[in-house]
This record gives sequence, structure tokens and C-alpha cells, in this order.
Amino acid sequence: MSADSSSPAIEPCFDTLAVIGPGLIGSSVLRRARQTGTLARRLIAVEIDPAFRERVTTLGIADEVTGDVAWAASEADCVMLCVPVGAMGEVAATALPAMRPGAILTDTGSTKMSVIDAIRPFLRPDVAYVPAHPMAGTEYSGPDAGFATLFENRWCLLTTLADADEKALERVTELWRRCGARTKTMTPEHHDRVCAIVSHLPHLLAFTICGTADDLADETRSEVLDFAASGFRDFTRIAASDPVMWRDVFLSNRDAILEMLARFTEDAQAMARAIRWGDESYIVDKIERGRSIRRSLIENKQA
Amino acid sequence: MSADSSSPAIEPCFDTLAVIGPGLIGSSVLRRARQTGTLARRLIAVEIDPAFRERVTTLGIADEVTGDVAWAASEADCVMLCVPVGAMGEVAATALPAMRPGAILTDTGSTKMSVIDAIRPFLRPDVAYVPAHPMAGTEYSGPDAGFATLFENRWCLLTTLADADEKALERVTELWRRCGARTKTMTPEHHDRVCAIVSHLPHLLAFTICGTADDLADETRSEVLDFAASGFRDFTRIAASDPVMWRDVFLSNRDAILEMLARFTEDAQAMARAIRWGDESYIVDKIERGRSIRRSLIENKQA
Repeated sequence: MSADSSSPAIEPCFDTLAVIGPGLIGSSVLRRARQTGTLARRLIAVEIDPAFRERVTTLGIADEVTGDVAWAASEADCVMLCVPVGAMGEVAATALPAMRPGAILTDTGSTKMSVIDAIRPFLRPDVAYVPAHPMAGTEYSGPDAGFATLFENRWCLLTTLADADEKALERVTELWRRCGARTKTMTPEHHDRVCAIVSHLPHLLAFTICGTADDLADETRSEVLDFAASGFRDFTRIAASDPVMWRDVFLSNRDAILEMLARFTEDAQAMARAIRWGDESYIVDKIERGRSIRRSLIENKQA
Repeated sequence: MSADSSSPAIEPCFDTLAVIGPGLIGSSVLRRARQTGTLARRLIAVEIDPAFRERVTTLGIADEVTGDVAWAASEADCVMLCVPVGAMGEVAATALPAMRPGAILTDTGSTKMSVIDAIRPFLRPDVAYVPAHPMAGTEYSGPDAGFATLFENRWCLLTTLADADEKALERVTELWRRCGARTKTMTPEHHDRVCAIVSHLPHLLAFTICGTADDLADETRSEVLDFAASGFRDFTRIAASDPVMWRDVFLSNRDAILEMLARFTEDAQAMARAIRWGDESYIVDKIERGRSIRRSLIENKQA
């Protein structure tokens, strides 16, 4: 489905969709919903910052823009939490008691086990909860950063709970398919390990190398950073991401990230040893492996 | 100067330019020379692989295409070595004895101390040697990968030897300026440390994380790599670079790379500790630092 197709024959997934936190992800969902008309009949955006509320109103991507989480939750048959993972529990505590029986709660957090743990105490038997994670993003944040095609050909990972409501899972899955995403269901544990290696660790390495380079520049009082070649530019692009979001991600997925960093460090030390001792075949083998992974990503349309 | 400006008023830098190794870098120089007419009156490309020779001939980016290093060197007033850094010494050993008195030898190697050491035994008092490093590139390689604007707004670092010929340095500097590059002169030692942190270490980390992810995928027999989010995609782009070139770079700049990896590892461990103990301000500070570095690169037009 292309971004601008808007067939009147398709029934919207929901009557009223409340997006809490219309940042990069949330505002992209709203734009998609606006553009296609197939996600929901009515769109509510909830934003606590008055300046951002004004931006969302100006952008015209929601029918109503409010700072009132409970009111929005009481109006919607689908409430989507798009706030930083560290804020999910607090927002859910306000939203859940206000929700209608039969409505669906979902979220877009980058980590799943900690978000589920934070939301679980407030869950109600008459509201289905479907944790989701659209694996899309840029280094920009805020309501102006979103765009309707952000999720196209990207994965949206849905995680299953022991007491999962199959019908609710299917409805949220369909919403993400209509955003252009490919969907997959897995356990929260598996999700967190996968994301630790393909997303969280790369960000941690990128933030770290920027600091290492900056220290060297201070020490030599020189222009180290002026000479960023292509290798370093890509790292700084990643490192430009939102600090609060990433702080929360690192703290929320601590165990998996520390495990992946330990594995990575072992591998980096093995590479260092090969460089020290001139083990050419080891080095070439590792580089070839990187290339073949790149090729498989291109075949999978993820690169 | 834009890529297509070709003012007849400008005297070309050289009469005959011989580019040895018309890969990504060498073929980009040839394209630029062809397009602007301001680098040299006559262009010779030297390539040992007959298939690549045929490609260069078909591309029409040189007046003559040959496999004979000594002949090309004897015809040129500027010989530019664009081969992998591990091959520089061998090619220089053939080129230098054939060169004309007063001609200039230059190279485009990504490391400088090892290249200078490899070339030094063959230097002649009547041929000036100007080591250079255009900091531009993509993950592609070979004569088809080049393009005339590759060096625009990128740095070309020129390194000074104790017995540097100032006039030759100025002529090679001017050639790179006409390629659109910004130029800077520094010692080979400083060059190698700067490049270790802004280019070589990022590539090492990218190659390594691809391997770490691949191991995890094998171990869990799962689709880890299918879910490459934006963070990992950038790493695989870097990791797709030419294996022989990077093997040579790692081995040639061993000491500086191992030092930078050690510094980086300390910093990554400090970040791991902050994540383990929930030190929010440390984490946010590191992320903010990455962002400010990104901003300064954008201001410097390097991002």
C-alpha cells in the first residue's frame, strides 16, 4: 500500500485513536492516519508541552490536541503510548483507569520487558494490552520530525504476553501493516536481545566514540573532529539521537545491552590481537563477514 | 569551483598525470581531470587487472590505459599512487627509477607513516615526494565507483617530510583544491592518530559488530539481522568497504589504531558501568556530547 492510497472501501482500524506523545514516532502515525484515512476515523494527540501542542495543532495532524491524558483515553477505542520508555508506566497509570471497556492499549517503546513491567500493575481485565515496537527512526525528534512514510518496509515487532488477546493483537498488527510496516510477533525477552544488538549497542558505540574523539581533540588541542571522514560521519548521525529517549532505553534494557557489549568487546579484542600480530586472514575474514551481512540486508530491503 | 567549470584561462597543474590504480579514488581524480581540464593536459591510467583496464578504457576517463607502471612513470610529470597502502612500496619501486628528473611523486594512501617508510628506500634526490590523503570515500570500490565530485568539500591532508620540497607541495595542494577539496598540512604522525580515531576505529567497530550480530543469529537460529534498525544499517554501510584496503590500513596504522581502540574500550566500559548502576547524568552527558559533535560537524560541512 502506498502512502497516498486512500480507498473509501477500507474500514478504518479504529473509531478514535489517541496518540500520547506525538514526537517522531507518534506524529508519523498521525500523519499516516491523516493521509490514508484507514487507521481511525478520529485522531486525538496528547502532549504535555504547550509549545509542542501548538506545533501539532499548526501541523493539523490530529482532530483534537490536548494535554489531558485521562480525557483522551476515555474517548478512544485505541490508546497508543509513544512517550520515552521511562515515562510509559506513569502515563499508563493515568490512561488505563479512564479507558473504555473493550478498548485497546498499545505502545511503541524500543524496549519491551521493562515497559511491560511498568504497565502491568495498572492493567485491567477489560482492556487488552498489545506491546509493539516499530523499528524505524531518524536522528531527529519532536512533532516536526515525523513523516507519513517513516514505517514503510520497516519492521514492527509485536510482543506476546501469556494472556494475550488474539483479536486485539490482530487489530494492532493490521494498523501497523497499514502504516506500511512488516510485522512479526515474538516474546518480549527475544525482542529485547535482538534490539540490544541491532539497535541499542550500535547507539552506545556511536555515543562513546564521539566522546573518545572529543577527548583526543582536547588533549592534542587539535582539529581532530574537523577531519571526520565518512566512517565517523555515520557514527555522529546515530549519536545525534534524542538523549532522554536513549538514556531510558539503556537503563530499561540494561541486562541485554551489557551482555551484547561484553560479547562485542571480546570480538573487538580478538580483532585487536589479529592487528597486533598481523593475522591477515582473520582480519579479512571479519571484513568479508561484514560485507556479506550488508548484502543480506540489501536483499531484505533493510539497507 | 564547481565540477563542470572548465575555464580555458586556467593553466593545468601538470602536463601528464599518471594515476596508478584507477579505483574509487584514482578514477574519481581522472573523472575530475577529464571534466575540468585543469588538472593535467594528458591522463594516463595504470591498472594491472586486464578486466579493470577494459572498464577504464570503456569509461573514457584517461587518454591512455596501460598495465606498464614504468612506462607510465617515464611519461608523466606527476605520478599519483592510488593503490592499497600495502602495495605502495612495491609500485613505487617500479615507478621511481623510471621517473623524469623534476617530476613529482604523490600518493593517496589512508595511512602515512607506513606508506612513507615503504616508499623512502626508492626515493631519488631529483624527484619530489608529496604524501597526501584525500579523506573521501564510499563503501564501493573499483573504477565504476568513482565520480568527479567525490572530493568536494572534503579534506585532503598533505603530510610534510623533513626534506619537503615546498614548490612540489604547493603544486599537489593546488591539484587537490581543483578537485574541490579543502587542504591541510600536518606531520605523518599526527595524521595517523587523527585518522585512527575518525576513520580507522569506526571501521573496525563496524566490522566487529557485524560479526557479533552474526554469531548471535547463528546461536539463536533466529532472524536477528532481519530487524536491522537504523542504528545497525549505518554500521553495515561502513562494514561493506573493500577488505584488502582495510586489512592494509589496519596493519599499516597498527600502533595508533590499537591505542585508540584501548581508549575507546575504557570509555565503553565506563558507559557500561553507568548503565549497570543507573547513573543517568553520566549517560545523558555522553549522549549530549555526541549531539554537540554532530552539530559542529554540520557547521563544518563534514556531515
